[in-house]
Amino acid sequence: MNFDKFSRIGWTKKEGVNRVSLNKYDLLARDEFVAQLRSVKAQTEFDDAGNIYGIISKGERDLVAIGSHMDSVPFGGRFDGMYGVIAGLQLLKNLSKSRKKNHIAVIDFTNEEGSRWQPDLLGSGLATGAFDRDFINRREDVDGMTFISALKSTIFFGSPNNRVERQEPTVYLELHIEQGPVLESEGYEIGIPVGVVANIIDSYEFAGSSNHAGTTPISYRKDSLIAAAEFIKEVNQQLKLYSDIVATVGEIINLPNAYNVIPGTTQLKVDIRGWDFSKLKEFSFKINRLAYQIAEVHGISMKYKRISLRDKTQFNKELIELIEKSCIRHGLKYKLMVSGATHDSVNMSKIARTAMVFVPSHRGISHSKDEFTKDVDLLNGYKVLKSTVALLNE
Amino acid sequence: MNFDKFSRIGWTKKEGVNRVSLNKYDLLARDEFVAQLRSVKAQTEFDDAGNIYGIISKGERDLVAIGSHMDSVPFGGRFDGMYGVIAGLQLLKNLSKSRKKNHIAVIDFTNEEGSRWQPDLLGSGLATGAFDRDFINRREDVDGMTFISALKSTIFFGSPNNRVERQEPTVYLELHIEQGPVLESEGYEIGIPVGVVANIIDSYEFAGSSNHAGTTPISYRKDSLIAAAEFIKEVNQQLKLYSDIVATVGEIINLPNAYNVIPGTTQLKVDIRGWDFSKLKEFSFKINRLAYQIAEVHGISMKYKRISLRDKTQFNKELIELIEKSCIRHGLKYKLMVSGATHDSVNMSKIARTAMVFVPSHRGISHSKDEFTKDVDLLNGYKVLKSTVALLNE
Repeated sequence: MNFDKFSRIGWTKKEGVNRVSLNKYDLLARDEFVAQLRSVKAQTEFDDAGNIYGIISKGERDLVAIGSHMDSVPFGGRFDGMYGVIAGLQLLKNLSKSRKKNHIAVIDFTNEEGSRWQPDLLGSGLATGAFDRDFINRREDVDGMTFISALKSTIFFGSPNNRVERQEPTVYLELHIEQGPVLESEGYEIGIPVGVVANIIDSYEFAGSSNHAGTTPISYRKDSLIAAAEFIKEVNQQLKLYSDIVATVGEIINLPNAYNVIPGTTQLKVDIRGWDFSKLKEFSFKINRLAYQIAEVHGISMKYKRISLRDKTQFNKELIELIEKSCIRHGLKYKLMVSGATHDSVNMSKIARTAMVFVPSHRGISHSKDEFTKDVDLLNGYKVLKSTVALLNE
Repeated sequence: MNFDKFSRIGWTKKEGVNRVSLNKYDLLARDEFVAQLRSVKAQTEFDDAGNIYGIISKGERDLVAIGSHMDSVPFGGRFDGMYGVIAGLQLLKNLSKSRKKNHIAVIDFTNEEGSRWQPDLLGSGLATGAFDRDFINRREDVDGMTFISALKSTIFFGSPNNRVERQEPTVYLELHIEQGPVLESEGYEIGIPVGVVANIIDSYEFAGSSNHAGTTPISYRKDSLIAAAEFIKEVNQQLKLYSDIVATVGEIINLPNAYNVIPGTTQLKVDIRGWDFSKLKEFSFKINRLAYQIAEVHGISMKYKRISLRDKTQFNKELIELIEKSCIRHGLKYKLMVSGATHDSVNMSKIARTAMVFVPSHRGISHSKDEFTKDVDLLNGYKVLKSTVALLNE
């Protein structure tokens, strides 16, 4: 199976998928994707963010775009992103054999995850005009490598003329695993997100004073990790007062990080998500004040930086109705829901009628080697995607 | 000044000294040390831990050894360790010109800090019989490089016959910065440690479940970093019940450490020190139980490992009296004290009469680029060392 072939690029049983944007595994996947596009004589293009487009222009009408991303988080799963790209590729292969009213494009967006370069959705951000070129070019990974220099060292740096925005698609569809436990635990076969939650990402740096762990009396210490630990605990305490938002401290960088040295600097990021943007802002403000208070109590300094802020996205109602129709046609039990994960569809919704199709994730596990979706669910999602595109062609 | 030349190897103003054991800067310092030993015709030897010995055998009597270490922690200071080695080198140069009763050796011990390979005191550990060869050879750094393979790729791998134990020194003296704030804040010019505190190092691993930060409801989460944060806070709460021990969480490793992924595994180390060994054991046991309780509350697992355990070391009383005599001779105000930092002298005390001389550290800052000791204090320490060696020669 083609999906199996792709999804194992960069996979190890122990660590999961390490197909971080433009690393050697992502490049291998891209090479294979391009080879398969060319084998069905799809027109293959790259834009100046390295997004890959495979286009079949058999119709006379609108361009329908189907896409997702092949990059992964570090230690990620096989399904996240890759499923949508390969389903699109499969549909393109099928449609290449018959005359349709619409053109069709399948897209692999660069650096969706934001694991290597922040923020996430970088490729679709440039291609839809959400980010400008200078901004994305200057992004640096942990080794100080800029996005543009990494991209230019590959064959995937193309023309701004190829950006999806300039190709003027009327519809964008994205097939994706749910990445949450809801569909499986409630017994649904398909999820149809009405939109994507709002998202705030904040960065905090606690700066104390690095010192010897044996000789510095407790009263002399300015330990940045203790302050950071109290803050992490407090974020989770405060969260208990909110039922409808989530917040995560996923990343922490502690310096110098030696067991016999008192930590001098500790940085961390807080990722906050929910449907109600005003509640997110309220929560962010609240924990921000707490961070300052904790730093003050410990006699250390604190630096705060807003990394990103994004209001909720509402998907296209007519498209959602077509997807519902497809589910009913195939006798699939579906649920209208809110997506807690951000997707390239958020950017695409600014330039085209956009909707998504979700399939269940076993135990809701994602961004992990244990991410899993059954074959029957993968096929159900593909059927719904195919039918929806067929309905658009009617 | 020779000390200045050596202490700036691997130094940058921004990051401090990065002369981590056997890295390129440590090797540069070693090359220079050997060159200077040879320039005064000291017999130069390496043992099978890469410890460097420079020996002047003009006397007929006992071997007096003077030593410390040239390796540093990451982002460390210029004085820690290097001061003692260069003071020993200087003394050797002076003594090489005149006939003395005793032989004299100056030693640079390998991997004192334990930043690259754990535990610390690796070089003196092998040379004094505290560790066996297989144990130290198998130690791995974060990149999986074993101690022995790193050492064998240098010119400093020598014979076990050269180990200090087999050279049978009768006395070991180590001159070092205090690395604490006591001497400066109480107005002393010299510190004479009566011994070194006991030390327990414990390692904890909290293992939950890595998952997507947007789609996983709070009630489904098993976030290892939250448990680790609560534990760090608890360690510091418990510490308030003890006035005579210190504990530090200096190192934390969080996986996969991406801002949009719920942490699945968080490891940390706790370094506990104090004069009363039984209190250390009690504290270690107490926080150990708390770690299990915290893991249980969060529904995650916890693995505990004892990294090392070392009782206090008491230094030689007659030597301490000679050092006091030297201080009095030079009119220096000295304090008998306990050392909170571990030194190679702990291992050396097992095979020779051992004592140390401390000089003040400005604001007690050590293991940091801001580590500083005034020239006058450096010279005072050297004078005391020189006089003590002279008294031994009487």
